[in-house]
Amino acid sequence: MVRFDSDYMAGAHPAIMDALVRTNLELTAGYGNDPYTTEAKDLIRKAISLPEAEIFFLVGGTQTNATAIDGLLARHEGVLAADSGHIAVHEAGAIEASGHKVLTLPHHEGKLSAEDVDAFITEFYADETYPHMVAPGMLYISQPTEYGTIYSHDELKALRDVCRNHQIPLYIDGARLGYALAADNADFTLSDIAQLADVFYIGGTKQGTLFGEALVVTRRELLRNLFPLVKQHGALLAKGRLLGVQFSEMFRDGLYLRLSRHAITMAKRLTEAFAEAGYTPVIASPTNQQFFHLPNNLIDKLREQASFDYWGVRGEEYSTVRLVTSWATKEEDIDKLRRVLQHICQR
Amino acid sequence: MVRFDSDYMAGAHPAIMDALVRTNLELTAGYGNDPYTTEAKDLIRKAISLPEAEIFFLVGGTQTNATAIDGLLARHEGVLAADSGHIAVHEAGAIEASGHKVLTLPHHEGKLSAEDVDAFITEFYADETYPHMVAPGMLYISQPTEYGTIYSHDELKALRDVCRNHQIPLYIDGARLGYALAADNADFTLSDIAQLADVFYIGGTKQGTLFGEALVVTRRELLRNLFPLVKQHGALLAKGRLLGVQFSEMFRDGLYLRLSRHAITMAKRLTEAFAEAGYTPVIASPTNQQFFHLPNNLIDKLREQASFDYWGVRGEEYSTVRLVTSWATKEEDIDKLRRVLQHICQR
Amino acid sequence: MVRFDSDYMAGAHPAIMDALVRTNLELTAGYGNDPYTTEAKDLIRKAISLPEAEIFFLVGGTQTNATAIDGLLARHEGVLAADSGHIAVHEAGAIEASGHKVLTLPHHEGKLSAEDVDAFITEFYADETYPHMVAPGMLYISQPTEYGTIYSHDELKALRDVCRNHQIPLYIDGARLGYALAADNADFTLSDIAQLADVFYIGGTKQGTLFGEALVVTRRELLRNLFPLVKQHGALLAKGRLLGVQFSEMFRDGLYLRLSRHAITMAKRLTEAFAEAGYTPVIASPTNQQFFHLPNNLIDKLREQASFDYWGVRGEEYSTVRLVTSWATKEEDIDKLRRVLQHICQR
Amino acid sequence: MVRFDSDYMAGAHPAIMDALVRTNLELTAGYGNDPYTTEAKDLIRKAISLPEAEIFFLVGGTQTNATAIDGLLARHEGVLAADSGHIAVHEAGAIEASGHKVLTLPHHEGKLSAEDVDAFITEFYADETYPHMVAPGMLYISQPTEYGTIYSHDELKALRDVCRNHQIPLYIDGARLGYALAADNADFTLSDIAQLADVFYIGGTKQGTLFGEALVVTRRELLRNLFPLVKQHGALLAKGRLLGVQFSEMFRDGLYLRLSRHAITMAKRLTEAFAEAGYTPVIASPTNQQFFHLPNNLIDKLREQASFDYWGVRGEEYSTVRLVTSWATKEEDIDKLRRVLQHICQR
Repeated sequence: MVRFDSDYMAGAHPAIMDALVRTNLELTAGYGNDPYTTEAKDLIRKAISLPEAEIFFLVGGTQTNATAIDGLLARHEGVLAADSGHIAVHEAGAIEASGHKVLTLPHHEGKLSAEDVDAFITEFYADETYPHMVAPGMLYISQPTEYGTIYSHDELKALRDVCRNHQIPLYIDGARLGYALAADNADFTLSDIAQLADVFYIGGTKQGTLFGEALVVTRRELLRNLFPLVKQHGALLAKGRLLGVQFSEMFRDGLYLRLSRHAITMAKRLTEAFAEAGYTPVIASPTNQQFFHLPNNLIDKLREQASFDYWGVRGEEYSTVRLVTSWATKEEDIDKLRRVLQHICQR
Repeated sequence: MVRFDSDYMAGAHPAIMDALVRTNLELTAGYGNDPYTTEAKDLIRKAISLPEAEIFFLVGGTQTNATAIDGLLARHEGVLAADSGHIAVHEAGAIEASGHKVLTLPHHEGKLSAEDVDAFITEFYADETYPHMVAPGMLYISQPTEYGTIYSHDELKALRDVCRNHQIPLYIDGARLGYALAADNADFTLSDIAQLADVFYIGGTKQGTLFGEALVVTRRELLRNLFPLVKQHGALLAKGRLLGVQFSEMFRDGLYLRLSRHAITMAKRLTEAFAEAGYTPVIASPTNQQFFHLPNNLIDKLREQASFDYWGVRGEEYSTVRLVTSWATKEEDIDKLRRVLQHICQR
Repeated sequence: MVRFDSDYMAGAHPAIMDALVRTNLELTAGYGNDPYTTEAKDLIRKAISLPEAEIFFLVGGTQTNATAIDGLLARHEGVLAADSGHIAVHEAGAIEASGHKVLTLPHHEGKLSAEDVDAFITEFYADETYPHMVAPGMLYISQPTEYGTIYSHDELKALRDVCRNHQIPLYIDGARLGYALAADNADFTLSDIAQLADVFYIGGTKQGTLFGEALVVTRRELLRNLFPLVKQHGALLAKGRLLGVQFSEMFRDGLYLRLSRHAITMAKRLTEAFAEAGYTPVIASPTNQQFFHLPNNLIDKLREQASFDYWGVRGEEYSTVRLVTSWATKEEDIDKLRRVLQHICQR
Repeated sequence: MVRFDSDYMAGAHPAIMDALVRTNLELTAGYGNDPYTTEAKDLIRKAISLPEAEIFFLVGGTQTNATAIDGLLARHEGVLAADSGHIAVHEAGAIEASGHKVLTLPHHEGKLSAEDVDAFITEFYADETYPHMVAPGMLYISQPTEYGTIYSHDELKALRDVCRNHQIPLYIDGARLGYALAADNADFTLSDIAQLADVFYIGGTKQGTLFGEALVVTRRELLRNLFPLVKQHGALLAKGRLLGVQFSEMFRDGLYLRLSRHAITMAKRLTEAFAEAGYTPVIASPTNQQFFHLPNNLIDKLREQASFDYWGVRGEEYSTVRLVTSWATKEEDIDKLRRVLQHICQR
């Protein structure tokens, strides 16, 4: 069985496991007050070319989103997001659980357009009843999106400008940020992201760490008192250094990007394998998630030897499925998938 | 200036004011533990033919919705509603503030179809990722809707059946319930509503009381401990008898329906006045809210002598406006509106 | 039966009812956008000698506390209060329901001392683990307290100074503020309260209106966006003018203080009646709430002809009870109480 | 420098790290749907002799408490706890952030007495105003407590009986449960805990895993829908198997208890070292936390070679400090501490 269900199926890259083992029996202070966490913050500040940024490490993506959004919004405000956004769909209402509405706009292959965001906010305040409605207090986007697509530098800049005009912060969910940075058509760097976003996070869980996300606050005045807020959200890791050790490995000499590039290479080969079998992706995703619309009988046969998920509900005859590569995907797994596909489709 | 902005522009029907004045200096226990509240509950139980119903009086609609929905849902559940529903739009995020997501479905002139609701819930549980999503824990509808339309008895029954099949409660926001009951095409009674809904409320504020909504729990096991829950929501009126006195007047001898019928009669005359001027409603509303798509210059001239609100944002040349009648609308106000319309349109 | 259960047993002062009846059939805009509300705000601004204050009218005390406190605190902060404070005891967890801890300090006859508050905050930040604890983000006091006692001007100033030193706002719950102002030993005016408090409210419900509390924000930057916040808390009254009409009557020519003084006069006579029977108050309350420690058999006999509440739990042989006067208490009721007491105690 | 700051200063026991390394590159399903998690659940069910228990693994203690308590309480209910309880002090308001009040009772060396709990609940319902107050909906205790003390089997049974009488669940915070089980005077087993508690958790973070807590629901009907609730609380680990792998190691052949016993042995030696220097613990703690009241100059000198925390605020001349051993404490560290103490005290 070869597995393409998600990018969080393996543990951590061996270099990261080695670092955890190497430091395992050291005794350090808890809650991130340790030298590894300090080192990791410095390495990330350097990688984003923003020495004054505030960095905070959390364990997972949903808790990072919930904590940051709760901290960024006033009580009467909500967060604007694509209706396909992770916070709008797959976080079990974590944003609402801390009291905030997710205000959704229709997505375009997972993305929001600056025009739509601008129009929404402009019309919001043009409606005389707006004080009875939830005010858009920030913008949430994912880079890459839940559909694997990426915003170009121009698109990000346009969204940032809309946010600045309306004086709301721009937040970027970077659960898979490395896979966006490593995409063939990426025309932005990590430093660009840090310049454009007010707050964002660099995902670790799906990128090669055991777990962990690095929340970056580029304008500190927007999100103060992160420590108690993180604690209140139940998101403070006692042995905080585990996050520091892992992110130090990631950013000491470019491991983060190298692992991301590998996943992209694997994704392209995977797409080629499907193309050879006559199936092109339903969305032109340049990242590690690939979506195909396949006949159910092909899916059924494929699933005997390869695991992957439906994207939404199984259809009558055709269904959309998602296959995901990662830093851990092996070439031989792609090769096996290709052979299985060839075998099924030849019959 | 004649005013059609809303149905909460006047105080209370004089009979209600008289009752409040008559009882004003009596000393009674607070928080609804008074004979007037007891009487009002009994009168409503009789009016809905449901002797075992639990009744609780609250001050306003948003707090009634927020309290009831919070009490009906488990923490991980959300409330299904039309995307035009009051809780989804004009309650400033009160539902989310108590931790629950409003799951929206597209409306059809303010209404939800049983098919859509059924399909949503069925597909929700067909999606393998559903434990990561907010589960639909109840259904919210408004009768009449925010567009003035009403659900027929069959439509209500179909929605109720879908809810029963999926084992979620049906909640009806009856802020303007009387206006639905008094509609020409209404094929349901108040008792029918009580039979069909698990929980609903009978609005007072827009129907002739100074304020007040009567929350009706037809199946008590669904919503226990209302008293502390209402208190916790800041929605417990110290002088609870003010609500009892008012609802007793409303339900002692049919005042509630009589006032509702008057508003419907006024709405029909108002619609006739527009029809004479060449404008028919954009939505066939049988209740007290009427919507027209008018040229902006007509709107501007009309507003010199009549007040009413835009429905959404003012357009480039045409805009949609809403005119609302109520128990307090006078025939002469409609007549004046007719004359103004004639005068403007003749030019 | 004469009744001393609480100060919210009657409706409104007749002058207020007259004003409500007089304006009843007028049509005005909702949600406080009406001339009566504007007038009431201006009258209060004049009464507190603070032209730039923001005023917002809400229906009841719990919702006023919950809304204001929610607006004043950051997410990671809690509110400091006496352990006898209304928000700590009798609001059914409304503060916690909006996510904030009530940090309690021991009370001294209902009051907090500036020393205790200062020591708490100082020790809080001296504890190295403070980022794991709820930070004191504001101070809540009641004037008069839940025990009927009042803070002197010096005591208020000392508390205000502690708050300023620690840069947290001082909030005063004035549900019965008039009864404090009218106390014989009151050495502060309403203007003093407005000078000392950052935010406070002037209670109406217990002071002669049907309902309603006037929230006063003396430093607007502390509590912006009140309208949507109030709406989100379900605390926005549709017919907002009902609050404006009532508070205009209260503050147009001193009715508020006149009614308060009457209650104090009645409280003194009530205390005299008990003194004649040999019982002095357990707390030297200069306001309208009086507490007595009485033998249970006296209580039982008294309750046959007078109603009042236990203060806490009934004891084995003696219990503490509370008797409350108000603007609506009649001299003849006190006289009757005196006669009943004499009659019982003579036997 | 020898370190006794806390029991979460080291990583994981080497056997656990080995297991994580061994399984690191396997690909498994996420969110706990993997064979290691299944195995760990089965091992724990066996260890607690309760085959029907529901087990759920979370990352940290605060999130476990917040999630479980939120799931166990109705909206209008609060959680009873000692005023020294972790949820009352050091969780930054996480319980209140999900809407629930922590109702505190005075502790006795960290413990609650069954009498106090019974009296509180009995008096609560004897107070006629109780519907205005937060109802005690469950009982929270820590075993061992924050002061290192433990409840005996009889004390636990008495608390359990009080809970049963008042029909509220008993929840045990077992962040350091192993250290209680390994105490010399422990007269209960893990199975006893499972028999007595309705819900409890077996801590991993402080007991030898990298992180992780095993929440055990002994009566499933009390806490359904854990998966979406955990997700909503941001507490669902993507690579859930990391928890399964670790807890499998812990419970496969008794590692959990062996590690706990080691910490107790170390704590006893540490106490002996202080006793030799003339200082006995201020609390008779049989577990891994030891508290001493020491002269500040001794503390200052000691801290040059040993790290540990103040317990509360540093006093004028004497202060209370806490020294903590763990599964990772080495005999040579204790020996060094003893020598340093001897050296200081001889001068």
